[in-house]
Amino acid sequence: MRRSRLRQAGLLPSWMLLTGIATGADVEPIRSIAAQILVIGHRGASALRPEHTLASYAKAIEDGADFIEPDLVMTRDGVLVARHENEISGTTNVADHPEFAARRTAKTIDGTPMHGWFTEDFTLAELKTLRARERLPELRPANARFDGQFEVPTFDELVEFVAAQSTLRGRVVGIYAEIKHSTYFHAIGLPLEDRLIAAIRAHAHTRTAPLFLQSFEVGNLQYLRARLGGEAGHVKLIQLLGEHDERPFDSLGAPTPTYAAMMRPDGLRAVARYADAIGPNKLAVIPRLDDDRLGAPTSLVADAHAAGLLVHPYTFRPENFFLPAGEQAPGGPATRSDAGAIAEMRAYLDAGIDGLFSDDPALARRAVAR
Amino acid sequence: MRRSRLRQAGLLPSWMLLTGIATGADVEPIRSIAAQILVIGHRGASALRPEHTLASYAKAIEDGADFIEPDLVMTRDGVLVARHENEISGTTNVADHPEFAARRTAKTIDGTPMHGWFTEDFTLAELKTLRARERLPELRPANARFDGQFEVPTFDELVEFVAAQSTLRGRVVGIYAEIKHSTYFHAIGLPLEDRLIAAIRAHAHTRTAPLFLQSFEVGNLQYLRARLGGEAGHVKLIQLLGEHDERPFDSLGAPTPTYAAMMRPDGLRAVARYADAIGPNKLAVIPRLDDDRLGAPTSLVADAHAAGLLVHPYTFRPENFFLPAGEQAPGGPATRSDAGAIAEMRAYLDAGIDGLFSDDPALARRAVAR
Repeated sequence: MRRSRLRQAGLLPSWMLLTGIATGADVEPIRSIAAQILVIGHRGASALRPEHTLASYAKAIEDGADFIEPDLVMTRDGVLVARHENEISGTTNVADHPEFAARRTAKTIDGTPMHGWFTEDFTLAELKTLRARERLPELRPANARFDGQFEVPTFDELVEFVAAQSTLRGRVVGIYAEIKHSTYFHAIGLPLEDRLIAAIRAHAHTRTAPLFLQSFEVGNLQYLRARLGGEAGHVKLIQLLGEHDERPFDSLGAPTPTYAAMMRPDGLRAVARYADAIGPNKLAVIPRLDDDRLGAPTSLVADAHAAGLLVHPYTFRPENFFLPAGEQAPGGPATRSDAGAIAEMRAYLDAGIDGLFSDDPALARRAVAR
Repeated sequence: MRRSRLRQAGLLPSWMLLTGIATGADVEPIRSIAAQILVIGHRGASALRPEHTLASYAKAIEDGADFIEPDLVMTRDGVLVARHENEISGTTNVADHPEFAARRTAKTIDGTPMHGWFTEDFTLAELKTLRARERLPELRPANARFDGQFEVPTFDELVEFVAAQSTLRGRVVGIYAEIKHSTYFHAIGLPLEDRLIAAIRAHAHTRTAPLFLQSFEVGNLQYLRARLGGEAGHVKLIQLLGEHDERPFDSLGAPTPTYAAMMRPDGLRAVARYADAIGPNKLAVIPRLDDDRLGAPTSLVADAHAAGLLVHPYTFRPENFFLPAGEQAPGGPATRSDAGAIAEMRAYLDAGIDGLFSDDPALARRAVAR
């Protein structure tokens, strides 16, 4: 096989290797090593509801997600809340609140300069006066009809919500939470991890139901492994992997590997010492060709499996804008292509992935159920 | 008709009048005056889940309740939370928390001496460390399997929960909240009504969806009518009515009527000046005979309708313990009699009621749907 020969020759990083242009014919589908391929409702069912609202999580559960995926940031008074970013102008109506006009500020978060309003400058009580808005109204105009209806949920609230839904449905729904900007929040005196550990211990659901914790950083996962590892086998840790030439933010300045290096076999074996799975960009599993069609899988899944790691790539979305060429539907970038989205996910399932982050869990459920 | 003749003669309070022993035959069923007969999930679906938990509210919504019914009390730091009583030893695990042992105390609430732990002695953060328990484990042993799983929800949390469920189901579920011990909470510096008004204004759901507010007191309903009446036609007020010889607690010492007097035609006309409906004990609508079988309806429904008031009696429960003779199933007091519970509710529907408080909304839905 060309892939293995090139790889043995060390000519290319293994995650960049392609088996060829075609995905079919001479390429044998490989198998997930998971007991069950997981459908992870990314920010809830964010293709259908404003992300990180109880309504979005509810829709994800209704639509068959095995896990709902909150991102966690912190308020000034140390409460974990669900937002994709600590900067909230894109997903709340904060700009419409004149009493908070003076809170607008500029910061550098993980090396990126940003302007806006930041959760760490608001108490929970203040944040609770805001209401969620659709982040992508151009691509998801139907979601904007829910603008102004929903609060920013706390982690405790969403745990109770998921627990109630699990009880109602007689089906345990897991939580797959991302710790955002760990080093940054430590630096400003709001460490997320200890709060999260306390919250996990405070709820029957998080003490017993499947709980996956993910981060683009490394040190915090190692910290959580040390503190939660022996306590409960139901807690799994996921190393998220970013752009090839980037490094985990907590490794900046240290002689630590890039994400590309972490995706090589020896890098994966190092990750496996503290994590249970990796969460790569889906393009690191199946890259796109020059014409934006799906290429052939890299060796990342096989290499991760060989290291004992599950692979949960991000993010599967149903709109043309996000789909590879060949899987789009007639229409504009906001047009959904359900069949195309399912076909894309099936190509990834054939590449052996063990779960998918999906903005539309009903489609992911269909892709997995074939 | 015997009923009207006796009533004209003023021999008996009209609500005590019976048309006879039999409910059928010579008695014409009267009709609800409501556009829709309401199924109110009493404390959620409290026959099936520990009362006043998100799981109980979720079950009520799943089972077809038009409204979920939270009772509201307050924490030391002024947060509205859902408990049937401010004394919480019966519905939480507070007694198992040694750090709160010293909070146990004796109080007199609305004239009733009580021992235990009281919400007004706990901050929300403290209350959130407790977990709900089934109040009636002997009658509802299956519910006790949920003990320890759920928090005491805040009003804000349950509003968001109901809003998310409404969005999910494409069906607007209303909130039918009871203000508990209004005078008592005022006396200790924790007035419920202003907090409630603020909370109503803070949520899209409570600003727009049907919202019913109920109390056994009078002054607070009049206060709410003055402040919410012009603002939103979606807010309805319900005068709850207690034992015949009791009075609203805020009327004690004043020359105000007993609940029995409030149920007479002139009393009802007075209630109609500030309220939209009454919530009487179901026995004031259909009393029980000496053998504990259902008697014939009183004139209360007709009198209330004549005054322009809807009638929502409490409480319909499916266990033998609560059912009239003739509607019980073989077994003990904890045995459910679904058919008997439905038959009981249908007798009340034939008496013209406009909604029911039910611990098992699925059964109430069936009774209403015939």
